[in-house]
Amino acid sequence: MWWHREVPARPHLPGDRVAITQGGAEMQRILSVRLSAHIGEQVVVAGWIHRRRLLKSVAFLILRDAAGLTQVVVSEPAARAQLEALPEETVVEVTGRVVGNPSAPAGVEVVDPVVRPLGAPAVPPPFDLYRPALTATLPTQLDHASVALRHPTRSAALRISAAATAGFRSILDGQGFVEVHTPKVVGSATESGANVFALDYFGRPAYLAQSPQFYKQLMVGVFERVYEVGPVFRAEPHDTVRHLAQYTSLDVEFGFIRDHRDVMAALRDVLAGMLATVGERCAADLATLDVTVPEVPAEIPAVHFTEALRIAGAPADEPDLAPAHERALGEWARAEHGSDFVFVTGYPMAKRPFYTHPDPARPAYSNGFDLLFRGLELVTGGQRLHRHADYLAALAARGEQIEPYASYVDAFRHGMPPHGGFAIGLERFVARLTGAANVREVVAFPRDLHRLTP
Amino acid sequence: MWWHREVPARPHLPGDRVAITQGGAEMQRILSVRLSAHIGEQVVVAGWIHRRRLLKSVAFLILRDAAGLTQVVVSEPAARAQLEALPEETVVEVTGRVVGNPSAPAGVEVVDPVVRPLGAPAVPPPFDLYRPALTATLPTQLDHASVALRHPTRSAALRISAAATAGFRSILDGQGFVEVHTPKVVGSATESGANVFALDYFGRPAYLAQSPQFYKQLMVGVFERVYEVGPVFRAEPHDTVRHLAQYTSLDVEFGFIRDHRDVMAALRDVLAGMLATVGERCAADLATLDVTVPEVPAEIPAVHFTEALRIAGAPADEPDLAPAHERALGEWARAEHGSDFVFVTGYPMAKRPFYTHPDPARPAYSNGFDLLFRGLELVTGGQRLHRHADYLAALAARGEQIEPYASYVDAFRHGMPPHGGFAIGLERFVARLTGAANVREVVAFPRDLHRLTP
Repeated sequence: MWWHREVPARPHLPGDRVAITQGGAEMQRILSVRLSAHIGEQVVVAGWIHRRRLLKSVAFLILRDAAGLTQVVVSEPAARAQLEALPEETVVEVTGRVVGNPSAPAGVEVVDPVVRPLGAPAVPPPFDLYRPALTATLPTQLDHASVALRHPTRSAALRISAAATAGFRSILDGQGFVEVHTPKVVGSATESGANVFALDYFGRPAYLAQSPQFYKQLMVGVFERVYEVGPVFRAEPHDTVRHLAQYTSLDVEFGFIRDHRDVMAALRDVLAGMLATVGERCAADLATLDVTVPEVPAEIPAVHFTEALRIAGAPADEPDLAPAHERALGEWARAEHGSDFVFVTGYPMAKRPFYTHPDPARPAYSNGFDLLFRGLELVTGGQRLHRHADYLAALAARGEQIEPYASYVDAFRHGMPPHGGFAIGLERFVARLTGAANVREVVAFPRDLHRLTP
Repeated sequence: MWWHREVPARPHLPGDRVAITQGGAEMQRILSVRLSAHIGEQVVVAGWIHRRRLLKSVAFLILRDAAGLTQVVVSEPAARAQLEALPEETVVEVTGRVVGNPSAPAGVEVVDPVVRPLGAPAVPPPFDLYRPALTATLPTQLDHASVALRHPTRSAALRISAAATAGFRSILDGQGFVEVHTPKVVGSATESGANVFALDYFGRPAYLAQSPQFYKQLMVGVFERVYEVGPVFRAEPHDTVRHLAQYTSLDVEFGFIRDHRDVMAALRDVLAGMLATVGERCAADLATLDVTVPEVPAEIPAVHFTEALRIAGAPADEPDLAPAHERALGEWARAEHGSDFVFVTGYPMAKRPFYTHPDPARPAYSNGFDLLFRGLELVTGGQRLHRHADYLAALAARGEQIEPYASYVDAFRHGMPPHGGFAIGLERFVARLTGAANVREVVAFPRDLHRLTP
């Protein structure tokens, strides 16, 4: 049932401490999922009128709270008349008696209710939230995000997003990583040059950070192991289903690695931890979306770029993987290794950023990798340069000046260990996991070429 | 001892999985704090040359890693000559034998070492990192942040910051709050009008978000209880020790409250959780900074604004509390209640944002509060308006148009419960906790009126 979440699915539930004044007395509000422990008792429940079913002999008020739904049985004529005047989404507090009813959500319902609106009758939203699927188009949903997100299919994706992030942090905290917060406003449009948002910083030009890449590397010099969860900004001029102007980047960087293989091993564990937490915390949400959490193999299959081209049937001189190649690799990993994940290693240096460490044995190829999740690039990572002289050489080889990178490059004169890291796009991860066709379905208030509100 | 962290102080330590190639063979790198379990064994340690002590008969290499310091004893002439050519901050890998030595850090040292640099000899930083205190001025430290942050006093503050944030999330996750990520680029400069950064958003004017206030309120309509940890931006034109152009805001918002007192109770628990996690994870860092974690009273003393003026000796018609008043209140709370924390409730409506809920009994005063920590405003919070009509009236009373707020205000037509929340400035919290005179001391890469790099 999409409209009710089981208690075990979300061990942490709100409602224990919120007391409600009811006719002068204070009663503890009980959350929907906890009502079964109160059969026979007078209780207060509160939430939104999710749906009204006005039958001939009886009316039902389906109340939605943070944890699920409660069926309230309205028999008394005055109460029914009151309910008829309260549209869906009105916030109410209901005092009544809990009785068992195996056919009601969670096996209980509330009878003999006194309904008290906690505000004015709601204006019904432009789409019905009580239907199993939101029928409004995505643009309409996004225009009315604050109500569309109340639909279980939309809120489920955001709960999964929160759980994935918690899993990410949990695994890394357990391995001694330190969380950092780095500047989102930077003085140079350095990392890729294009696609940056310019802003006026006290009269000076500045830019929104496209990634915390440089800062997380510098922080390896401080803590060895760092991560950051934060917004990154791309002035992405293309209107696609997988690009956003702001997204949440899960960034990791750590030192004293041998090479990129240590980074891949760490990423494997991080992904497994993210999915484990989603599985633990979000059973009901996964059920709502009809999604199962994939297994992460103990060792994710990895193919070198040159081999990836061959598997994808691409010419051997292709400089990069096209989306069709990524899909082919995803199918190959599924068929050959039973894995939803596959690493592609050794991308050509020419296609990777200047701070990428080359493969010592084949310097035209890099120690950089991508992780594909069900045939879509989900993570980019690799070993970085750690010697100051290598940075000077890499920038010179690309015809770039040192000056815009000075405070970054200078740091490598002061001792930096071999290091690497990766960045996971949170929204892309959740979209791929939940099967969302458009990444905007798993973001609360997306930002893109056209959308700046709400 | 400021230069060594005890094992119990940081249960989560890195180093278990990083293997190092040494002369073709692979040996597990051992972290400083774990060496005492390897007495008599040949080990690999790795890190930065923190200090060299070149005595007549023997030389010491003090190696710094993520967990602390290791004393390496260099007796052999060739090894000593090598060490003399390796300046402080050079990254090295050391293979040697662990022996007990009660006078060395952690009671062990490494003897008969083979030292392998993992990069070029470092350029020594512009200040000595091995001295107990950084003697460079704060601007010099900030100019060279990537090395200054390696000093234990600076890194300790950032570890405390990470632990406080983890404690914040842990308490809220345990109470059913859902983490959200909201837009940092917004279409209207709404919340305070002034002090916003303007940017070019695909040719349209846009602004950096000064807070997630509106969005977190909207998300109460979805999840009832939400929090966000993220950057906020203030184009603060004043150069003070407590303002930053970007800081990390710990935002909370939740519904079905009676009034602001439920918000204050939640804040009390959040603060207690933050400080408990700092105490658990950061014993060594607290010792480095000579800081003790304050007690949070089960009920934090609270005084109404009018009473606060009286306590502070301010005229009864003062519209707000000046810094001197806050200091006086801090002293009063310490003397009268033994508390480092004190709530001031009932701030005049005229001084609070338009979304603030008035005190129903005294409508000139608000259900908004501040929390002072050791005489400094640390947290602002309160009950918000939740009725659509109240928003229209509040904006009209201030002579403001609805239009810039439309997507926010409209949401309140669709049913919003009584709700409230608060925002904690992370850097200000850590600065106050650690006794930092300037908030810039507890930020990795601060942004202010003058500073846009590194």
